[in-house]
Amino acid sequence: MARINEHYEKLQAGYLFPEIGRRVTAYAQANPEKKIIRMGIGDVTKPLSPAIIDAFHEGVREMAQEQTFKGYGPEQGYAFLREAIAKNEYQDRGMNISADDIFISDGSKCDTGNILEIFGLDNRIAVQDPVYPVYVDTSVMAGRTGNSLSNGYYEGIHYMPCTAQNNFIPQIPDKKVDIIFLCYPNNPTGTTATKDELKKWVDYALQYNSIILFDAAYEAFIQEDEVPRSIFEIPGAEHCAIEFRSFSKKAGFTGTRCAFIVIPETLQAFDSKGEKVSVKKLWSRRHSTKFNGASYPVQKAAAAIYSPEGKKQIEETIAYYMENARIMKESLEGQGFTVFGGVNAPYVWLQTKNNMKSWDFFDQLLQKIQVVGTPGSGFGPSGEGYFRFSAFASRENVIEAMNRLKQVTF
Amino acid sequence: MARINEHYEKLQAGYLFPEIGRRVTAYAQANPEKKIIRMGIGDVTKPLSPAIIDAFHEGVREMAQEQTFKGYGPEQGYAFLREAIAKNEYQDRGMNISADDIFISDGSKCDTGNILEIFGLDNRIAVQDPVYPVYVDTSVMAGRTGNSLSNGYYEGIHYMPCTAQNNFIPQIPDKKVDIIFLCYPNNPTGTTATKDELKKWVDYALQYNSIILFDAAYEAFIQEDEVPRSIFEIPGAEHCAIEFRSFSKKAGFTGTRCAFIVIPETLQAFDSKGEKVSVKKLWSRRHSTKFNGASYPVQKAAAAIYSPEGKKQIEETIAYYMENARIMKESLEGQGFTVFGGVNAPYVWLQTKNNMKSWDFFDQLLQKIQVVGTPGSGFGPSGEGYFRFSAFASRENVIEAMNRLKQVTF
Repeated sequence: MARINEHYEKLQAGYLFPEIGRRVTAYAQANPEKKIIRMGIGDVTKPLSPAIIDAFHEGVREMAQEQTFKGYGPEQGYAFLREAIAKNEYQDRGMNISADDIFISDGSKCDTGNILEIFGLDNRIAVQDPVYPVYVDTSVMAGRTGNSLSNGYYEGIHYMPCTAQNNFIPQIPDKKVDIIFLCYPNNPTGTTATKDELKKWVDYALQYNSIILFDAAYEAFIQEDEVPRSIFEIPGAEHCAIEFRSFSKKAGFTGTRCAFIVIPETLQAFDSKGEKVSVKKLWSRRHSTKFNGASYPVQKAAAAIYSPEGKKQIEETIAYYMENARIMKESLEGQGFTVFGGVNAPYVWLQTKNNMKSWDFFDQLLQKIQVVGTPGSGFGPSGEGYFRFSAFASRENVIEAMNRLKQVTF
Repeated sequence: MARINEHYEKLQAGYLFPEIGRRVTAYAQANPEKKIIRMGIGDVTKPLSPAIIDAFHEGVREMAQEQTFKGYGPEQGYAFLREAIAKNEYQDRGMNISADDIFISDGSKCDTGNILEIFGLDNRIAVQDPVYPVYVDTSVMAGRTGNSLSNGYYEGIHYMPCTAQNNFIPQIPDKKVDIIFLCYPNNPTGTTATKDELKKWVDYALQYNSIILFDAAYEAFIQEDEVPRSIFEIPGAEHCAIEFRSFSKKAGFTGTRCAFIVIPETLQAFDSKGEKVSVKKLWSRRHSTKFNGASYPVQKAAAAIYSPEGKKQIEETIAYYMENARIMKESLEGQGFTVFGGVNAPYVWLQTKNNMKSWDFFDQLLQKIQVVGTPGSGFGPSGEGYFRFSAFASRENVIEAMNRLKQVTF
């Protein structure tokens, strides 16, 4: 008799974005004449840059000729892409990361969900709250947690509230945790951590032999020079951290699919005998057994991100989104909202007025002005009373949404 | 302290194909003047067909314009592709499979590795021996097995030997198993199962509420009308089977990456209270939480497989490979080998002479005539004394390899 993985029965509600989708679809079907402005899911809207498109076509053309056709590629990713990443993202910024430390994948959602497979179920996991739902949901599905609690948490996970009170920087745990998810620039709050703040985490991880899973999917949106772009800017991180990066937001690859993770040669974890084991070697075994490499033309397109034209074009697109964020932040502040993020991240995180619940705010915006955002509580209990707007929209829609918002009294 | 998943330490040796790669690379470096013919990894060599290339470019062009740009797609895959698959692969052949039953992914290796996540660790798993290593290795990594045994098996897995003695059709288990991997046309043996043989398995699964994981990655190579192309040709399979299909071999997508799985609405598994749970619903939760959809231009390219031109072009390529298989089979039989497969699958499975071990045969071929195949024992103990040749090669190389083989006395 085939039995299900019963850990799935612990999962509460659907994944956040499908739930938003259901509510918006229901509203749209009941009100087909209304123009809905979607700023909920953090999905890019600008097309791929010309340099990327050219390389993408070139990759497809190679697939059309026997001499240049590519079958199975290296599971870890083509060297041309890994070398471009190592140089441009790390070595040119003074970090000692080599192409061998980089694993190309088809997305950070997969990577952050899959990475825990190489770690034992007995590790205690810490997450920020609010948090990108994938870290928690995949932990639940794998049996790394107990049941859900009435406060919205799952037993067995160490939650670290991040609110305006602590400037969205989690407190160092007062008990030992083994694996720590940190996300900066943060999704959903759009906030960042300074080098000093990250150093505290690296020091903690080195002291307790913990591992930091550092999600830097929004690194490209950092505008301020002093904000760290990688955990590997912090000395010692090469002994305690894995970094997740994505081309989804950086270069508009949400529908094209390409990302990577960085596992330094020096990163080790322990077996039950206390022996050190290379984390990179473990991941390499996992990656080559359960993944067959990212699409070749996609990797070719991704490498163009690092060409001189590609870099310039991507910067222009990012500047466009960040101008959207600036407009939203300014308008929302002008409307009396307390607003976070939006400076080094494409997300604006506002506090609702009069302690309005996040989903009530969502429903009001949808019903009254047909603007869709993301309820903060969907990312965790500490997101209650907050609301996320994505800057990945057209300028016109951003301005229109902000104008519509002015018509509502909260 | 971060602890590793110690199940990884149970894994024996590397994954088969990296090991072949290492031996071939070592030989090539020591003998740079020798021309090596590679017929080991089952990787296609012919370029993508023109209809697929055109659609691929079209998909890339859409990504270049704001009006047609695609961000995140549906995790399950675009409807246009799922509908084309449902119609062409199933409905037109009289099977009651709908587009909603289909989940698009980036490859069957991922799918066959990931599917077990939705099933409890207490399920007893059955695999054919020899077997595609991914089913077993991913089971080991997830803690579904005990340690490896001296006979090459892992404790806790039910192995079903498939050799010339039983015509490569496994025996129905004499004890209950819960999840059964079946692969037809078979990798690595190239053999097929009749409808009557598959019906025995469906009957078994229905009787014991087991689930068959049917890997039909090589379906497109079936030449004989009476050979079933899908487990869903067998009545009742919609209550006990999941099917895996891939565009990798069918349309040369090994480097492009696209595959799908079929989970009928009617398929159910059980929780510990004995309640029935929809398997499709479970997989949908897994798929939407841990995967973000296959690349849009790739899905667009895949859909072109079902256009009239696409179908015709793919058939021509498949005919080319199958003529290779025919040439190999004929030549090897002429050289006194006993040969299986090669009629409805792109693999020829030969028995070595004088009980030579598979890896010895591999090394002899590499050292003496620079021809690379795959040692049967790499797929499991019952593959010992067998050897796989892939028909995914150029005609010239196939003929040359067969001629070189005649120079060796075994």
